[in-house]
Amino acid sequence: MRPSSATVIPKACSRRTLPHYSQRPVSVTIRAPLLRSRPPIHTSTSCCPSFVTVALAPSRPSTRLDLFSSHLSLPKPSLELNTPFSTERSAVLEDETGNIIRKQRAEASIARAKEARKVQIEAQEPTKMSTQPAHPALMIPGPIEFDDAVLQQMSHYSESHVGQPFVNVFGEVLTNLRKLFQTTDPASQPFVISGSGTLGWDQVAANVCEPGDEALVLTTGYFSDSFADCLETYGVKTTQLKAPVGDRPQLDEIEKALKEKKYKIITITHVDTSTGVLSELKAVSDLVHRVSPDTLVCVDGVCSVGSEEIRFDEWKLDVVLTASQKAIGCPAGLSIVMASGKAIEVFKARKTRPMSYFGSWKNWLPIMQNYEAKKASYFATPSPQLVRALHTSLSQILSRPLEQRFADHKAASQRVKKALADIGLKCVAGKPENQANGMTAIYLPDGISPPDVLPSLMKKGIIFAGGLHKEIASKYVRFGHMGVSVTDPNRKDIEKAIEALKESLTEVGYKC
Amino acid sequence: MRPSSATVIPKACSRRTLPHYSQRPVSVTIRAPLLRSRPPIHTSTSCCPSFVTVALAPSRPSTRLDLFSSHLSLPKPSLELNTPFSTERSAVLEDETGNIIRKQRAEASIARAKEARKVQIEAQEPTKMSTQPAHPALMIPGPIEFDDAVLQQMSHYSESHVGQPFVNVFGEVLTNLRKLFQTTDPASQPFVISGSGTLGWDQVAANVCEPGDEALVLTTGYFSDSFADCLETYGVKTTQLKAPVGDRPQLDEIEKALKEKKYKIITITHVDTSTGVLSELKAVSDLVHRVSPDTLVCVDGVCSVGSEEIRFDEWKLDVVLTASQKAIGCPAGLSIVMASGKAIEVFKARKTRPMSYFGSWKNWLPIMQNYEAKKASYFATPSPQLVRALHTSLSQILSRPLEQRFADHKAASQRVKKALADIGLKCVAGKPENQANGMTAIYLPDGISPPDVLPSLMKKGIIFAGGLHKEIASKYVRFGHMGVSVTDPNRKDIEKAIEALKESLTEVGYKC
Repeated sequence: MRPSSATVIPKACSRRTLPHYSQRPVSVTIRAPLLRSRPPIHTSTSCCPSFVTVALAPSRPSTRLDLFSSHLSLPKPSLELNTPFSTERSAVLEDETGNIIRKQRAEASIARAKEARKVQIEAQEPTKMSTQPAHPALMIPGPIEFDDAVLQQMSHYSESHVGQPFVNVFGEVLTNLRKLFQTTDPASQPFVISGSGTLGWDQVAANVCEPGDEALVLTTGYFSDSFADCLETYGVKTTQLKAPVGDRPQLDEIEKALKEKKYKIITITHVDTSTGVLSELKAVSDLVHRVSPDTLVCVDGVCSVGSEEIRFDEWKLDVVLTASQKAIGCPAGLSIVMASGKAIEVFKARKTRPMSYFGSWKNWLPIMQNYEAKKASYFATPSPQLVRALHTSLSQILSRPLEQRFADHKAASQRVKKALADIGLKCVAGKPENQANGMTAIYLPDGISPPDVLPSLMKKGIIFAGGLHKEIASKYVRFGHMGVSVTDPNRKDIEKAIEALKESLTEVGYKC
Repeated sequence: MRPSSATVIPKACSRRTLPHYSQRPVSVTIRAPLLRSRPPIHTSTSCCPSFVTVALAPSRPSTRLDLFSSHLSLPKPSLELNTPFSTERSAVLEDETGNIIRKQRAEASIARAKEARKVQIEAQEPTKMSTQPAHPALMIPGPIEFDDAVLQQMSHYSESHVGQPFVNVFGEVLTNLRKLFQTTDPASQPFVISGSGTLGWDQVAANVCEPGDEALVLTTGYFSDSFADCLETYGVKTTQLKAPVGDRPQLDEIEKALKEKKYKIITITHVDTSTGVLSELKAVSDLVHRVSPDTLVCVDGVCSVGSEEIRFDEWKLDVVLTASQKAIGCPAGLSIVMASGKAIEVFKARKTRPMSYFGSWKNWLPIMQNYEAKKASYFATPSPQLVRALHTSLSQILSRPLEQRFADHKAASQRVKKALADIGLKCVAGKPENQANGMTAIYLPDGISPPDVLPSLMKKGIIFAGGLHKEIASKYVRFGHMGVSVTDPNRKDIEKAIEALKESLTEVGYKC
């Protein structure tokens, strides 16, 4: 069974206790699926005595989450776990099960992979960049390459988190975030909290939602799915509107779903980092405001803020959450959220207390308002170094028109997509309108898997990410093109990455 | 009404909805209270149109938490809020109400404070330290001064969070944390997650506890109280065993409390940063294991790990949580937790799912185990720069015997305490056995408040923290003596701080 169209999957709060939850497809328009006709993928950990084999049917969207939920029931639960990113390092596991690899190439592929494992995971020909030590260009969809001035702020001498110099910097960061999100409504509220992008999901679940609330989750990959899992942790009932891998739920499907039930929130993953699929944010928000105006529009912008256009006020968004380490161009460690006045009102009107302490807006709202008013305030200690680095990266971004920034990212993305098409490679996001501008998920040619090319790319000074979406993990790589790699004319990261990819593919027998 | 002994205060989960919760003192041994006979403190925000006055009776331990809970019910909830640390900048408010200041000194004090507010909050005579730019010495109880090599790691070039070089570093960090906590039990489990120390409370509340569980909270200041607030957020029923300001609950009181009810956990704030009170960790843990062996011993070590001796295995501790920016000597931004095998077993046996997503051990346990096994793994993006900085600081700490480190901190603390006594100043933690070794909370002479000395200290290149404990906020300052300021023989931070304090007090008429 393979999804041939978007599928509505209600999830019960008790999902964790069930091995698999039921699927209830709705009758929606069937579009051409991007999934190829391939057998189910079997992954296994061949290196461990207790052999774990998990059959992943492509039609079962949350097998990866089920894996998570079964961690603790395994005899040695964790060390055996093949968590998503480990496919970057051990995707050879998929090769060794032999699926989808043409026989005549399978052996060669395995041999290459074994050889690759011997390769020192260090750049052999590192490139000197700016004033940073020579290092391979980090062309994954976050963390990205950082500007020298941003990194310099990271080693700022120690200062008090309630001292006026730092308070002023933090205040400016919050004000500048308003500009980045293009909101001038004073009721909008930015939050910057130590954490990762994931903490933004908790903030939505714990502050905007209350237990028993309904959420419509538009699913375009691994991260959308995980957002749903987070919501359920807080007792929110989620309904996932899933698209086939590489596609996104369509407006008519979303409209139908919105009319079936009253949803407290709808979540949209603007760019799902696992697939590079871009959601049509403005159109979905317009639809929500027409069909279900009380529903809050909550956007996961972790892989989009700074590289994709977002007009917070104009598009009537309610929450956009992101992280520091992607197109914003600041090292990882900060959860960044913009909430609308409406979202804050809903938060204030909640009947139950926020279901988190560290992520509670009740604790953070006055602190953020005080910081922005340049007034010292304390709930939990922020990271002065990270906030200073964010201040520098935001100042750099805002020193040029945002329109130009988005146009630059679009142009770079087009160059990447054209170069890939020229050598016969396909994007996971198959339709041009579905394609993110800050990253590209690239299907490798049949018979070539990530371990065949990633070490070779590394030797050429380029780091790509392996696959993350379980259904296709061994078949694709991910290429991030965001931030200074796009906007700094002195950097040739993107062109170098394209050339390195061509060379690596040629080395393993593919004719570019 | 003033507490003349430790008081047991049951808190209902619905406490938030009540303006004040009831106090039910138990008959325990009465000891000499440290509180002086002073009228209630009144704080007010004189700078705002809507004047907020909060009467704080010393006998009401959670007025500060009540303030938090009432944020949103205020007309302009946040900007008016006098959050704890703002007393560092606006403690003059307390002066203007005139309490406890001798009449003949009050006017002079106010005049000085007004003048102080004009002072540029920048060092006038900055000191060059090591290779860092000249800056005032940060002698607050965290963040502390950092070593050059640690700060340099903060600006490490960007790298993949699942790349082998970083995975190796993260793995070593986890292994080194075992050494710092003095645990060799392989069942112990370290966690390092982007966040602040506060996130450690959430980790305990969301993973170790389940809704309805009972927690005995030993309260020695603001942070103990907040830990209780965090636990209640997750539905845990807390009973606070409170000591008068500057004291700690005594063993006989704790034993009595433990025998009255079966507690899932007991929480101990090893050093409460608001008071500098040191808890007797080993003795309390021994008591718990004798009287209530199923109760898990959970320690807030935010202001103690790295400066106070902690023997995780030997003392049979179950959770010790801390943060990066204090005695560990790494910039803020990391929540660090060590859990015992018993705590992990309790976690695995829970009947309900963890009540957090970002802070869930279900999500993080396999990741930490994989990292320590030098295997790439992903749940949420860590901060490579912060983890590398932590790696460097831990390597520095472990390059010398831990016993020597703790002895150095004790010796430095004794120098500080003796110097203070020599000039007639008293510690908030009045009894020698109650006094932390990494910080000192210092009562200022009568009639002198933090705004009288903090700007003057700043001009001399020394940053102290203002008061944090609401009951005494305008009467004391806090002096951190941890990390490189103690262990680096080239630094004279502590001596300089003592001299600067003497000079500043002399300037405002105090005879040292």
